Amino acid sequence: MSDPFVVVGGDAAGLSAASKFRREAPDREVVVFEKGRWISYAYCGMPYFIEGRVERLSNLLSLSPSEVAERGIDLRRGHEVVAVDPEEKTVRVETADGDSFEQPYGDLLVATGARAATGPFDVRGMDGAFTLHNMDTAAAIDAYIAEPDAYDPSRADVSAVDRERVERNAAMPAPETAAIVGGGYVGVEMAEALSGRDLDVHVFQRSDHLLPPFGEAVGERVEAELVDKGVTVHTGCPVEALVGEDRIEGVTFDGETFPAELAIVGVGIRPNTELLDGTGVGLGEGGAISADEYGRTTLPDVYAAGDCATARHAVTGEATWVPLGLTANRVGRAVGATVAGDPTPVGDTAGTAVVKAFEMEAGRVGLVEDEAARAVGFDPVRETITAGSRSGYYPGASPTDVTLVADRATRRLIGGSIVGADRAAIRIDTLATALEADMTVPEVERLDLAYAPPFSPVWDPVLVAAKVLDGTLDEA
Amino acid sequence: MSDPFVVVGGDAAGLSAASKFRREAPDREVVVFEKGRWISYAYCGMPYFIEGRVERLSNLLSLSPSEVAERGIDLRRGHEVVAVDPEEKTVRVETADGDSFEQPYGDLLVATGARAATGPFDVRGMDGAFTLHNMDTAAAIDAYIAEPDAYDPSRADVSAVDRERVERNAAMPAPETAAIVGGGYVGVEMAEALSGRDLDVHVFQRSDHLLPPFGEAVGERVEAELVDKGVTVHTGCPVEALVGEDRIEGVTFDGETFPAELAIVGVGIRPNTELLDGTGVGLGEGGAISADEYGRTTLPDVYAAGDCATARHAVTGEATWVPLGLTANRVGRAVGATVAGDPTPVGDTAGTAVVKAFEMEAGRVGLVEDEAARAVGFDPVRETITAGSRSGYYPGASPTDVTLVADRATRRLIGGSIVGADRAAIRIDTLATALEADMTVPEVERLDLAYAPPFSPVWDPVLVAAKVLDGTLDEA
Repeated sequence: MSDPFVVVGGDAAGLSAASKFRREAPDREVVVFEKGRWISYAYCGMPYFIEGRVERLSNLLSLSPSEVAERGIDLRRGHEVVAVDPEEKTVRVETADGDSFEQPYGDLLVATGARAATGPFDVRGMDGAFTLHNMDTAAAIDAYIAEPDAYDPSRADVSAVDRERVERNAAMPAPETAAIVGGGYVGVEMAEALSGRDLDVHVFQRSDHLLPPFGEAVGERVEAELVDKGVTVHTGCPVEALVGEDRIEGVTFDGETFPAELAIVGVGIRPNTELLDGTGVGLGEGGAISADEYGRTTLPDVYAAGDCATARHAVTGEATWVPLGLTANRVGRAVGATVAGDPTPVGDTAGTAVVKAFEMEAGRVGLVEDEAARAVGFDPVRETITAGSRSGYYPGASPTDVTLVADRATRRLIGGSIVGADRAAIRIDTLATALEADMTVPEVERLDLAYAPPFSPVWDPVLVAAKVLDGTLDEA
Repeated sequence: MSDPFVVVGGDAAGLSAASKFRREAPDREVVVFEKGRWISYAYCGMPYFIEGRVERLSNLLSLSPSEVAERGIDLRRGHEVVAVDPEEKTVRVETADGDSFEQPYGDLLVATGARAATGPFDVRGMDGAFTLHNMDTAAAIDAYIAEPDAYDPSRADVSAVDRERVERNAAMPAPETAAIVGGGYVGVEMAEALSGRDLDVHVFQRSDHLLPPFGEAVGERVEAELVDKGVTVHTGCPVEALVGEDRIEGVTFDGETFPAELAIVGVGIRPNTELLDGTGVGLGEGGAISADEYGRTTLPDVYAAGDCATARHAVTGEATWVPLGLTANRVGRAVGATVAGDPTPVGDTAGTAVVKAFEMEAGRVGLVEDEAARAVGFDPVRETITAGSRSGYYPGASPTDVTLVADRATRRLIGGSIVGADRAAIRIDTLATALEADMTVPEVERLDLAYAPPFSPVWDPVLVAAKVLDGTLDEA
């Protein structure tokens, strides 16, 4: 009997791979090592739990350990893989109990995810300062925000939770002012969440606009929405440090201290690749593990998937690091099939992302910023238009901004963004599909998109943008 | 100076062509003949006017005659083109005043639209029986529904309206029961509209499910929604005749008479092509004027666009007749550019359509029904799945049914439909784009679509459907 398929990491990519492998190769062993107690939870749902819109922490769990076991997967929680020996085809495992052992593998999938980066902001050991790191942090933030006598312990209704940490945070006095360091996804979503908890929320963004990967047009609309809903947005405002001893007291910028009793640091994430240190594995953008169109790393029989791995970009064809949930699931599933003997391409990433900020919805795809486009050899031409989301006479029509970016010489669509209050985000899927099909702007302009007064004007905002950009390309 | 560009028809296709031509060829004359008093109105908005959601008839006007004149277009309302002489390159025009003359043309665009078909149901001369034909009918239906002392004449606030007809209808006793003959778009939208006016609404559909071009999965969900909102739906129930002398008294089916004081006949539309009788022009599907990829008919220098013309189908590549608003605008605009000297393809039609039925939204694209697919040589394989519109834990998630149809041998996506209550309709644009890009089901399965809990689960319903259909194709 061959050595097992060993999966490192029990979240989206790892369990998608193990599940698919289990179905396709029922006779071969599969072992999943997860260093923590948590598996398969909805990272993207955590802000909505903290907001209170999602009632229970358990609502964010996709799969329980017993469900995983029922699938015939040997899941070992509290087992950390600390090293890989690609020559011997073994991994070194250390358990939470202090044991350690060598585990041979036939095939290995590294699906170790990413962790919140903190930059110069060390939140450890400082009460009231958090990254949105995992379910324990989400539970702790939720408990910290509540008035001590008003905290409902049934919110954190999962046995895996760090109960002591939750109780300690629940006992602290409730904060009134929150400083969010970083105006990316986490920052914007947490601004909405903390406003929903009646905090006075301040977002500090280093650059000139929020949500840099979404481009300026989106950043400005989202900022206006946050401000409209009572959030204070400080753009062009790099925070220098967190202030406080045992508990957060504020953040400093421009030499001044802004007092706050809660700080959320959302300044990006970093891939977890340490277990491959010393193996010589190829690394790519952002230090993520290089993975090819079948999820293979540069080491034989070693695959990587999810937030720790690169993926091929739909526009550039180059390896890129865009850690997102669907990619983790899709790549994991494909690797599971491939290892089971059914070679399955993992698919490209188009960098498709959407975000909600109160009533505003935004999406982005491909190469939105000029620098990103130029860096890979395109000569970007862009237009941003505003058009109604519905026929003007139909109630609920809302101005929708569409930005399209094309390559000057070939007229190929290379990126875009959409922002608006009415069904704006989901429209990005149209652009994602067009991008993956290598469509030109004239081809997008001629797309037969839907029209009915409650849903779209005759010329959908996407078509209006294509029409305008095509005109600009004529002149360019 | 060359002979003018003559356009027949002052609605979407005709005025789009004239406007584009005017901008691109400022020195050449363009004349638009419109037989009626109305130009450029939103046909698709009429049900929402009747419902009362749109306050004024004038809200449905896109362009006024004076705005058209300001664009430098010679618009002649009350001028009917009754014949075309392609040898002499002239049209015969009859005016509402009883005059007639020959008008030479350099290029001619026939954009005469379509009219409501009535089948065996002659609504003329019978009060309370209507097709949803044009703005005068919309105003008349609206007035007819109102209690005589409650009608607000400012609703029909356009000088072009047939005021006498409006007043006559407003004076009639208000109906309590409405029979809608035909469960297509018009039938479904009018069911919602008339319910909004507190009528007891009955929809009679000849076949087994509503909205036949959307397929069974959509028809059943929409039927359930109509029933849930108090509409009575009679499927498999062909109406035989309208009953009544001067005023409608009911409709007959199965030998029985169902009493109603209002009847709306929506049994399809027919292209207006009579002005080309005797010219030998090529006709295609549905008797529409055959037009090629530049909108050219088989007659030299004669173009056709909009609801009177065929268009090339994105899936089959064959000429098809799918009269829809965007196509009319897009083809008209392209013909205007081509005639002005900038040859511009009119683009394909994918048959993309969306419809709202109370809280339910539905979309369809391509070849949804097996017969349609088989008729053009495909071997259709289909799957219908139900998936959430958002992450399950996020409030507002709603079951969304996606049907995908693929060709067995090539796995090419050839059609699809979507129905659900949460952002379902606009998702059809993803499928429309995939269809126009000739994507296969595995390619759709790997699309990098958006994921964020408020807008989509990790696996968008479209991706779930592709995954399931791909599995079925593996076994097929």
